[in-house]
Amino acid sequence: MSNSKINKLQNLLIKEDVDALALVPGSNFLYLTGGNFHLMERPTILIISKDKKPIAILPVLEIDSFKKLKLDADIFEWQDSDGYQAAFSNAFKKLGLVKKIGIEGQRMRVFESQAIEKASPGIEIINAHKFINHIRIKKDESEISYLQKAVDIAEKTLNETIKYVDVNKTEMEIKNFLIQQLYRFGAEGIAFDPIVLGGGNSALPHGHSSDYKIKEGDCLLFDFGATVHGYHSDITRTFFVKSASDDQKNFYETVLKANKIGLEISKPGLSLHELDNAVLNTLENSEFSEFIVHKTGHGLGLDVHEDPYVMRKNHDLLESGMVITIEPGLYKKNSLGVRIEDDVVITNDGCKSLTTFTKELTII
Amino acid sequence: MSNSKINKLQNLLIKEDVDALALVPGSNFLYLTGGNFHLMERPTILIISKDKKPIAILPVLEIDSFKKLKLDADIFEWQDSDGYQAAFSNAFKKLGLVKKIGIEGQRMRVFESQAIEKASPGIEIINAHKFINHIRIKKDESEISYLQKAVDIAEKTLNETIKYVDVNKTEMEIKNFLIQQLYRFGAEGIAFDPIVLGGGNSALPHGHSSDYKIKEGDCLLFDFGATVHGYHSDITRTFFVKSASDDQKNFYETVLKANKIGLEISKPGLSLHELDNAVLNTLENSEFSEFIVHKTGHGLGLDVHEDPYVMRKNHDLLESGMVITIEPGLYKKNSLGVRIEDDVVITNDGCKSLTTFTKELTII
Repeated sequence: MSNSKINKLQNLLIKEDVDALALVPGSNFLYLTGGNFHLMERPTILIISKDKKPIAILPVLEIDSFKKLKLDADIFEWQDSDGYQAAFSNAFKKLGLVKKIGIEGQRMRVFESQAIEKASPGIEIINAHKFINHIRIKKDESEISYLQKAVDIAEKTLNETIKYVDVNKTEMEIKNFLIQQLYRFGAEGIAFDPIVLGGGNSALPHGHSSDYKIKEGDCLLFDFGATVHGYHSDITRTFFVKSASDDQKNFYETVLKANKIGLEISKPGLSLHELDNAVLNTLENSEFSEFIVHKTGHGLGLDVHEDPYVMRKNHDLLESGMVITIEPGLYKKNSLGVRIEDDVVITNDGCKSLTTFTKELTII
Repeated sequence: MSNSKINKLQNLLIKEDVDALALVPGSNFLYLTGGNFHLMERPTILIISKDKKPIAILPVLEIDSFKKLKLDADIFEWQDSDGYQAAFSNAFKKLGLVKKIGIEGQRMRVFESQAIEKASPGIEIINAHKFINHIRIKKDESEISYLQKAVDIAEKTLNETIKYVDVNKTEMEIKNFLIQQLYRFGAEGIAFDPIVLGGGNSALPHGHSSDYKIKEGDCLLFDFGATVHGYHSDITRTFFVKSASDDQKNFYETVLKANKIGLEISKPGLSLHELDNAVLNTLENSEFSEFIVHKTGHGLGLDVHEDPYVMRKNHDLLESGMVITIEPGLYKKNSLGVRIEDDVVITNDGCKSLTTFTKELTII
């Protein structure tokens, strides 16, 4: 079922002049094989070479799961008590001469790459992250439908959760409620540990929810998502509790303006640099320019952060079928953080937001 | 607050003759600093050397979160659009001559170790996994109380979930319900994607829940846990739905016997080899010896799988304060899988199970 994807990867190997690729469990492994294995202390590796049968290095307890994938591969198995090195050595013997092997630099761990080096002394290990990920950078219709479902679940969840919010509830309580709603509405998993931050805590872009009790006049930031069939939604909305001051409103409207500009201009042919630049310029030209701490967004799919990254100096172009987040934010330390994040698919002549939850300033 | 832990690590560096350690977000980082950062596409590194101030390489958006830790460190920050390499280079300049650096081989990714190599050409990178993890191998009272809470939440959850189980419900439905209960009972997170497998699916030790509908006479295996303060529970129970055949009962009782022997003999001074050996011998000497696929267990704490591993050839000794799982299993392909897993703390003269949920054969 996945042979066409593996063929695509083999063609890329030839083009990039890399002899083979070694993949570990995660989004690429899942995309290519349908196999959803654990990235754990037991190395589980799939090797794709230019012209040979795939090779799998597997702990014994994963063999039956692997065989269910119906992927024609040579399997080298290993037992806990024997260790994995012999399986690596035998796999590389079978593979023959490999001078240069590509790996997923942001996923493979050092103990796995060291086992490869030991099995094939002198081998050159290169970070093939970019071109491996490239094969899944454009989403097809079924992928977009999974992303849409994941967004829909997140929006239903947000709708229920803002009804639950009240003064004196803690961030942790609200987060816990939110997670239960995600599952209630059919999420297969959570995209990441949800971020629910109130008041000054919202100024930490990756802060963790605490026992902080929500007060009147606080902002309340939600950043979270669901997974459906392995695909992630990732949505951020920022609300105000009971009331909002004029300063808070100005701050909010500045971020909203930047978000809207991102959605207005996104289309095939625009570079990711240009997109980030236009969004950041909006923030930089405001009275709040000192409160910028991050870029505009990232690709979204089987990973919650993946290529393409929407940032200055990335001169790659948007293409139809890419799915990105547009999530400008401003963060005033210990006081106020606002981020507004949409999940956006690039269409033939523009873009379409998968997120439809209101972005207009909302007091809850 | 964490200086004594860092001093302990510095003493280990001297003993192990390693110049410095580079840590990435995760359990060791959390244990040493209290900092719970994301392991993402943005490298976030803490370097501990023998005698200098810690050094942190941080993406700009994590700086405020890092400063909240009140850890006296030299910070080298980097912006998305500039990339991280210059921050690595400046950090290693500040660090001075480092010939040998230890890293967490099962956690640090290759792109991070490559950035270190580039910042400090010729540096020797060694997998210091074992001795870094060793500093948290014995749990203190507060850690054990978090583990106990995580176990209690899991057991309450299991109790509710088996009431929910019925013929014709799918594995996915039951898993979804189970996760909601975990949060309802106060889990801060789930230890891992819960394993809920019915009938023949239970024979896949790491299988994923599917749309399979539970039938009368099926076994139903649950393997899951909660997190509390970062500490994980990990419990497995296997039930039978409506009825169990004599063959199923024999199979179950064999696993239960192995589990009980593990709990009977665990005490300080017993080696992990001896423990695994005694448990596996029980299975090997039964009529079901061909259905063994994994070792007895693993350490449990800030990671759900951590040192010490309970397996043959691991001649390290159990010590008071270690927390391990004892989880023998038997797996008859496409037919029946049974695993019974307890979380066990080693005491001064034996062991104590944190899990108290009944292990006697239960028909639900």
